[in-house]
Amino acid sequence: MTYRTHTCSELNASNVGQNIKLAGWTARKRDLGGFIFIDLRDKYGKTQVVFDQSPELAQTARELHSEDVVQIEGTVRHRPDGMVNRNMKTGEIEVTAAVINILSRANHLPLEVEDEEEPGSELRLRYRYLDLRRPRMRKNLLLRHKALQSVRNFHTELGFIEVETPFLIRSTPEGARDYIVPSRERPGSCYSLPQSPQLYKQALMIGGIDKYFQLARCFRDEDLRRDRQPEFTQIDVEMSFVEEEDVFTHTEAMMQRLVKDTIGTDIQIPFPRIEYDDAISKYGSDAPDMRYELLIKRCDDFFSGSGFKAFENVINEGGGVFGICAKGKGGLSRKERERLEEPARTQGLAGLLSVPFTDKGLTGIIGKLFKEDKQTELCKHLSAEKGDLLLFAAGKVKLTLEALGRLRRKLAQLWDLEDKNELAFCWVVNPPLFEPIEDSDGITAVHHPFTAPNEEDIDKLESDPLNVYSRAYDLVLNGIEMSTGSIRIHDPELQQKVFKAIGIDNIEAKKRFGFLLEALSYGAPPHAGIALGFDRLVMLLAGETTIRNIIAFPKTNVASSLMDGAPAEIEPEQLRELGLKLIRNETAEDAEKAEK
Amino acid sequence: MTYRTHTCSELNASNVGQNIKLAGWTARKRDLGGFIFIDLRDKYGKTQVVFDQSPELAQTARELHSEDVVQIEGTVRHRPDGMVNRNMKTGEIEVTAAVINILSRANHLPLEVEDEEEPGSELRLRYRYLDLRRPRMRKNLLLRHKALQSVRNFHTELGFIEVETPFLIRSTPEGARDYIVPSRERPGSCYSLPQSPQLYKQALMIGGIDKYFQLARCFRDEDLRRDRQPEFTQIDVEMSFVEEEDVFTHTEAMMQRLVKDTIGTDIQIPFPRIEYDDAISKYGSDAPDMRYELLIKRCDDFFSGSGFKAFENVINEGGGVFGICAKGKGGLSRKERERLEEPARTQGLAGLLSVPFTDKGLTGIIGKLFKEDKQTELCKHLSAEKGDLLLFAAGKVKLTLEALGRLRRKLAQLWDLEDKNELAFCWVVNPPLFEPIEDSDGITAVHHPFTAPNEEDIDKLESDPLNVYSRAYDLVLNGIEMSTGSIRIHDPELQQKVFKAIGIDNIEAKKRFGFLLEALSYGAPPHAGIALGFDRLVMLLAGETTIRNIIAFPKTNVASSLMDGAPAEIEPEQLRELGLKLIRNETAEDAEKAEK
Repeated sequence: MTYRTHTCSELNASNVGQNIKLAGWTARKRDLGGFIFIDLRDKYGKTQVVFDQSPELAQTARELHSEDVVQIEGTVRHRPDGMVNRNMKTGEIEVTAAVINILSRANHLPLEVEDEEEPGSELRLRYRYLDLRRPRMRKNLLLRHKALQSVRNFHTELGFIEVETPFLIRSTPEGARDYIVPSRERPGSCYSLPQSPQLYKQALMIGGIDKYFQLARCFRDEDLRRDRQPEFTQIDVEMSFVEEEDVFTHTEAMMQRLVKDTIGTDIQIPFPRIEYDDAISKYGSDAPDMRYELLIKRCDDFFSGSGFKAFENVINEGGGVFGICAKGKGGLSRKERERLEEPARTQGLAGLLSVPFTDKGLTGIIGKLFKEDKQTELCKHLSAEKGDLLLFAAGKVKLTLEALGRLRRKLAQLWDLEDKNELAFCWVVNPPLFEPIEDSDGITAVHHPFTAPNEEDIDKLESDPLNVYSRAYDLVLNGIEMSTGSIRIHDPELQQKVFKAIGIDNIEAKKRFGFLLEALSYGAPPHAGIALGFDRLVMLLAGETTIRNIIAFPKTNVASSLMDGAPAEIEPEQLRELGLKLIRNETAEDAEKAEK
Repeated sequence: MTYRTHTCSELNASNVGQNIKLAGWTARKRDLGGFIFIDLRDKYGKTQVVFDQSPELAQTARELHSEDVVQIEGTVRHRPDGMVNRNMKTGEIEVTAAVINILSRANHLPLEVEDEEEPGSELRLRYRYLDLRRPRMRKNLLLRHKALQSVRNFHTELGFIEVETPFLIRSTPEGARDYIVPSRERPGSCYSLPQSPQLYKQALMIGGIDKYFQLARCFRDEDLRRDRQPEFTQIDVEMSFVEEEDVFTHTEAMMQRLVKDTIGTDIQIPFPRIEYDDAISKYGSDAPDMRYELLIKRCDDFFSGSGFKAFENVINEGGGVFGICAKGKGGLSRKERERLEEPARTQGLAGLLSVPFTDKGLTGIIGKLFKEDKQTELCKHLSAEKGDLLLFAAGKVKLTLEALGRLRRKLAQLWDLEDKNELAFCWVVNPPLFEPIEDSDGITAVHHPFTAPNEEDIDKLESDPLNVYSRAYDLVLNGIEMSTGSIRIHDPELQQKVFKAIGIDNIEAKKRFGFLLEALSYGAPPHAGIALGFDRLVMLLAGETTIRNIIAFPKTNVASSLMDGAPAEIEPEQLRELGLKLIRNETAEDAEKAEK
């Protein structure tokens, strides 16, 4: 039996008179008394089927439920005048059915497939297989498919080799967030699932593979509230004998191709680059959203000795005063301006001084304290013109910048400055190599410990590590970090120095990264790479706001799958086979004692 | 700094006179006193570099070790007459170096990269990054890359959608061989890693995705001695509204394209099809190697009442006598024929009767017991001609067929009948749905419990399940099972009947496969699919005999990675976070008690 000769989107006037077979779901049914219309739906579209050839056929059709799966045989004919639907691919024709086979009955559905209205997100996840019948998820999965192929074709054409790296690996440095997989062969030993193929792609470079890529599934057991998933896909790339410029050029060309192949848009390359320190001081963020201005400018010089005590005190205590010019917002009412104070405080600012630039110059306290030429100078400093609104905040430098960075985003949302159709990429380059560990004297690598320090900073590794900058680079899209990458260390001695700076001594380093250190000693080429968050990228291309909408079977924010019920309780017997048992009812100390 | 203007395989006579940069590994070094030659190697090839411009440069080159990574700048020139190497892509030219930069020093290597001789397999796995520098692995990884792209392009062109299914899933039916992943959020609960995306691809069909494919990593915690890996890649395909013929046509076209895209060979399609029962009775195997004859034929009729007591007894006890004709092997000496008995016994046969078909007819005991016309008839039955050797064995039917199937392979190896360049595909169709569980009264699914029974056998599901045949199909290549696939059950009631037959009652079914059963009740299309073992396929295309040679970072037969040392012992603290502890030093019974 052939189920279908055509899909439900194919038939048109040129098929009139043909005998055809279609198969699909019963999308809508209209009962006109003597005969019945149904819209038959498959992945590709819908076709109107009429049951008007016999009362028996009409009766069978009458008894169909929503989402019953049927096959029909029939003849294509023109729709009657006035019934043509120009908005539908098959709108010129209808099929008059001669035979109907019911392939599968559908119970009453827990969510409506044909409704315009979106079902609740819990229902959508629980019955994902029904949600997938809706146009939104279908469109997103197709876009994702295209993006996957685009990335692979791009790399293949350039001579990159796709290598599948292992999923059952040895624990990685950020071990605390690794998923572990107990070994049956060796009870007490475990694999871990990779947070990224980092060490393996470096091994490939040392193995002379020269150009590698992979669409790699990665795993991270971490807080999922910020729209993260325990498993995610990254575009993983590594190249030998390259420098920053090569990676930038490569990535920009990939993104250009990817955007074109998926949504048909041409994007401008090269992408703007911004030094990490500048990103922090101008945007209050290491992932600046370039779609709007609202640049942060330091204004200490204007306020010290100005007589504005609150700000003067901050400056005297080593803090800073920062201003932002909000274009065209000078006309906001006092009430509207006061309303800005709440998000400012939510983002961590002590207060927000808002000063309209009116025909009479700056108003409010600044208007009172600052003479006209100083006002002019301040406005010039902030690139402000009449009709703009100036916002000022003061406090500890780092905290205030970060708070202003967050406020910047809130204001952009409030004032609708984010162009949803714009794709504003930028590179953030030259970040610090290390950062302090919270509540500790130690430092840790900002990216990962295989990132090369800037050549000229190498002698500061021991003496002044927090002022060592690195050869890392982030790609940012619309204020979202899309990728991290770096020139890697290819000198085993330098690698050990970096380990030492973050408190990993030689013995520990050998234990944790032994194979990489040894591999580096057998002739490692200079190499660099990048890893792009594929889910997030597809999300932005699809115009979605959560990655759950571009993953076929995602997990909730407590890492569970509502569809299959994973994770599930495990039988004690299964654990025993792995040499493990539950300590659910014991405290950690009890377990510790029991171990001794 | 640009590391290179060309790769080490690019330069030829047309580049003579150009100033170029190359980077790569020091492959070979020859010291001609005044000046030094090195072969510089990268992924793409080798180039001869001469250090003859200054004594200092020559001295630096003299001190290079094997596998040191260097960059050189120099000028391309013709090789002197008589020094041209036509076997080398860059054999017309050499580069006279003006500058050398040592990028990376190499310690003495534990395995030789440039030797013809293959290092030991343990060394190769331990230092995989060095093994990858050898041509063999590089060639294999490139072939694998091409195969990956071929499969994806093929499916994309046909409108299939690649969907990434989850790796952290709920445990599957064959749970005992699942790798489990403890959940941190819910101590005592676990995910498992998929043995295949079976349930998810069925969910996609129920979701209306129509045509799905994926190059899916799968995991199975099982005996690895038979050249298996704990993680492997499968070409996973599922389609809606299709029947067996559609899957066959699709798979054959994919294989044709894949073989062409990778090794350039045209293969014949369609592939021969053989009924499962015929495969067993003719080849003694459900994965017949079609490259050679050595067909098995049942010969009971000839031996009952023949006076050959040993065989008569077997027949009387319900067993069978089977013959194989070995073409052209009639001339083997008695000694050579006796030597066949050992592999026969190793494969499980009680004995092997070998009878040359000589000018005087059949010799030995059959010659004595069988009259001439009976001899002629027997030879005709076995398609034997003069000069052939007839082999006979008797015993319990199933065991003897299986033993002869294994013997058939041994003989083919012994007599070199396996054409390494031939790709002999065949479909094995219509296998039984169930098989008995060893040492138990129960039965289990031969493939998996989602396989559809043959329509006409459905009423035997309860009464005579072992005689229910299924709509499954295996693709076999050169005697190796390449894939399994089937028409799936899309009727929830039929699915429950099949579960029941294998001892899974409704409650258990709901617990284990609840979401699938529910999904089937909301309008499931008829669907079918196939899963091809990608590693094994690439292995055969590459002419390799172990899948370890076509996986970048494989594991040993105790599932450990010699390169990174996985699996590794885990800190008790890490286990405690997961609500687990080791019971290594307790017996299972102790643990059981402690649990209560």
